Amino acid sequence: LSGGGDAETVRRITPVILCGGSGARLWPLSRKARPKQMLPLFEGRTMLQLTTERIADRNLFNAPVVVTAAAQADDAAAQVGADAMLIVEPCGRSTAPALALAALAADPDTLLLVMPSDHLIADSTRFRECVRSAIAAAEQGMLVTFGVRPTRPETGFGYIRRGEALGNGLFRAARFIEKPHAVGAAALLAEGGYDWNAGIFLFRADAYLAALAEHAPDILKQVEIAVETPAMEARFAPSATAFAQVRAESIDRAVMERASNVAVIPIDVGWSDVGSWEALYAASPRDEAGNCLSGPVEALAAAGCLIRSEGPQVVAIGVENLAIIATGDAILIVPLDQSQRVGEAVTRLATGAPSLV
Amino acid sequence: LSGGGDAETVRRITPVILCGGSGARLWPLSRKARPKQMLPLFEGRTMLQLTTERIADRNLFNAPVVVTAAAQADDAAAQVGADAMLIVEPCGRSTAPALALAALAADPDTLLLVMPSDHLIADSTRFRECVRSAIAAAEQGMLVTFGVRPTRPETGFGYIRRGEALGNGLFRAARFIEKPHAVGAAALLAEGGYDWNAGIFLFRADAYLAALAEHAPDILKQVEIAVETPAMEARFAPSATAFAQVRAESIDRAVMERASNVAVIPIDVGWSDVGSWEALYAASPRDEAGNCLSGPVEALAAAGCLIRSEGPQVVAIGVENLAIIATGDAILIVPLDQSQRVGEAVTRLATGAPSLV
Repeated sequence: LSGGGDAETVRRITPVILCGGSGARLWPLSRKARPKQMLPLFEGRTMLQLTTERIADRNLFNAPVVVTAAAQADDAAAQVGADAMLIVEPCGRSTAPALALAALAADPDTLLLVMPSDHLIADSTRFRECVRSAIAAAEQGMLVTFGVRPTRPETGFGYIRRGEALGNGLFRAARFIEKPHAVGAAALLAEGGYDWNAGIFLFRADAYLAALAEHAPDILKQVEIAVETPAMEARFAPSATAFAQVRAESIDRAVMERASNVAVIPIDVGWSDVGSWEALYAASPRDEAGNCLSGPVEALAAAGCLIRSEGPQVVAIGVENLAIIATGDAILIVPLDQSQRVGEAVTRLATGAPSLV
Repeated sequence: LSGGGDAETVRRITPVILCGGSGARLWPLSRKARPKQMLPLFEGRTMLQLTTERIADRNLFNAPVVVTAAAQADDAAAQVGADAMLIVEPCGRSTAPALALAALAADPDTLLLVMPSDHLIADSTRFRECVRSAIAAAEQGMLVTFGVRPTRPETGFGYIRRGEALGNGLFRAARFIEKPHAVGAAALLAEGGYDWNAGIFLFRADAYLAALAEHAPDILKQVEIAVETPAMEARFAPSATAFAQVRAESIDRAVMERASNVAVIPIDVGWSDVGSWEALYAASPRDEAGNCLSGPVEALAAAGCLIRSEGPQVVAIGVENLAIIATGDAILIVPLDQSQRVGEAVTRLATGAPSLV
């Protein structure tokens, strides 16, 4: 494999931003109707906006394709720029069908850079350099994944085993491992040679569709049916009834775990999925007391805290290492190192106070 | 001194409930416009209601006199019962003038039982027995104070030194000590023989007025001017201009520290001034995890916490020994054992967000 060349000579890439997810892990800020990528978490900017800015260089990237859900389509459209193409999914069927929509909408030899809309990448410049490094392999038909060096025995991500070196910083992906249990995660970390699967990919549209045809032909076929008579406008809209019959499956399970032409390029770009209040705290600037404060917050002798309010006055005295998150109708208080338990509490609330979820 | 006799034969007592105070120590529930005694802190009941219920036995007590401020008069009237007499102070001048108003409004030989409206007494029956024990001394012209056995080196209360035993559980009050510093409080506790001054008194109206005439004649004279032409209705209302010229002084400094006919009766009745969130927690029932929860609160692996919400959903995960108090516009989070620092934070807020104080 050879290098990708400079901005003048490289082939332009079409970013595909996956913006359909919703989660409870940043409750009470995140809600079903306002998922994580739509929250102004970083000095008033959302992760969808930051993702869009990351691929704003039109020397390297074409206007993005944004795959989103109907409920989020207007919000997403307002944030991604007028030149973006929106694909509105009638229902969520996970990432393999979503990317089939994007690949079918693109020219076959287009390079697609797949990115979740709710991840943070601190060093965008370095990220773009990594993308350039992967271009040649993708051009040649490889499915390239971007791997993040594990820093803890995380059970919330999949892992990728690095195989034979392919040059230019890439390795053959020897094995995909689904989210492990704690013991398994610790073993992978101890063994070394694994990267977190961050859900970022670079491949030719036709290479992805070929892999799908080989490893999950039912998905490809049903997505093709759903787009046979779409309204081919700015918002590419597959048939709701046909798309509902697509098997819901992630790209990892449908393709990456099965295909042989998969490469991984380890990246060190300040990546975070901001999957908990602790992760947001880690990714945010802090004051001299180690606090990250936002909104009407008065902190007295508090240290190491993430405190955010969207309205109510918060007064925190003498507390340490807490996340305190206040909205107009709900308040969360949890030690930062237990913030992965928020989901449990939200599940409980879903029964008693569904309007708050 | 002889005993007070039983309910049939004892002289009936007129309770005087002092309901003019306001404080910041139970912020954000307590506000300038909603002082501590007006808060439904105990299963929906306010301390003013509990105080009124404590003297509801009309065999022992007459209908109460409630001395209050104009801003609180309507709220107070609604809580104390239709037979109460309200005295509305045009402005606050501390307790010595407030009690002069009550004493001037009463028949000279009436026994007045003075009680703050924002204290908790868990054992009302025992309290009434103590009141009965003090009747004979008060009849004979003594100014009787009720003393609470100190359980910690509290710097927020005055102390009373017990002198010569007078029989019937009473002692001559040898000395009044104003709120001490921490070192002084510890010394008093170590020395023994002191009780906290709880601001509860029993005396004849004329005995108090005589003591005032002797030790603070200016106060008595100016209060008499203020009531010369009052509107003697259910709400006894002194002249605003004249009352404003009364020297503001506590009964302790104006009379009790100076008079020689002062007795103290130590009482053990589950008294608390509920002067902090920690004190409220101590006075409240707890669940098996040691939590005291009120309002829409979801606690997950929380222990030893006082959590109250007046509206917003609170979710607390994995926290211990915290006070978490939420209203519609403000939230406090503080370790229970640091809850005496709330005043500092409120002082700060008074500058930046005066509407929240």
